Amino acid sequence: MSNNCIFCLILEGKIPSNIIYEDNDNLAFLDINPSAPGHTLIIPKHHKVRVEELTTEEATSLFLTLHRLVKPIREAMMADATTITINDGPESGQEVQHVHIHVIPRKIHDGKGVSQVFRRPNVRSNTEDFKKIAETIKDKIL
Amino acid sequence: MSNNCIFCLILEGKIPSNIIYEDNDNLAFLDINPSAPGHTLIIPKHHKVRVEELTTEEATSLFLTLHRLVKPIREAMMADATTITINDGPESGQEVQHVHIHVIPRKIHDGKGVSQVFRRPNVRSNTEDFKKIAETIKDKIL
Repeated sequence: MSNNCIFCLILEGKIPSNIIYEDNDNLAFLDINPSAPGHTLIIPKHHKVRVEELTTEEATSLFLTLHRLVKPIREAMMADATTITINDGPESGQEVQHVHIHVIPRKIHDGKGVSQVFRRPNVRSNTEDFKKIAETIKDKIL
Repeated sequence: MSNNCIFCLILEGKIPSNIIYEDNDNLAFLDINPSAPGHTLIIPKHHKVRVEELTTEEATSLFLTLHRLVKPIREAMMADATTITINDGPESGQEVQHVHIHVIPRKIHDGKGVSQVFRRPNVRSNTEDFKKIAETIKDKIL
């Protein structure tokens, strides 16, 4: 755990979040600045900055959690597809220095483009009903 | 294998590519339209469109390959960080309907931003010395 890391504080329950999944190694919760409704972050519980710092066991567990969650998140949001992306290292624009996988539900013709040329709307909204979205996704996870 | 899939044709050697890594389950080669030098695609050998279609074994093998390659690719390109991204499903802008992970080396102040708002230069270049880049990366893989 890192005292300066907002994700570690979420893991410790010191900062509230809308959790959709948790196991021994990983936590998944809604991004507070979503690129689309249901935009989820999946993080390992061990504080590591980059994917390459994860042990093989941690990487396996993290990415199998992604593999497990991507379909229920998509279905819960009635989305057609998903953008999965990691800013791996601060020089890539990683805003929180704790490994996190973005899972962004996509709809056909949503105008966001491909992830290599991704555009997020300039207007950031906090008006989404985060709790409702989190519940909808949790209900989809087998 | 799918006869209509350009990545399956690459796997069969019917279309040339700059391969940087291969094992029983996965292939990694340079993207022909790189967002940055060393932009690599990692694909499973089994033809599947979406991450959620992979078996647990296929997903484990694919993502452990990512875990193994991300550091050597970054170091080979003398990059500072990495953008890792998947367009998962055609409605997300997936251009080839065969699972592929983009691994894009990043440099500080390269102006590309975070992957959720990623921008690729409008000018697409084929002038990179792909073979040299592929060799440089291969040399870094332990």
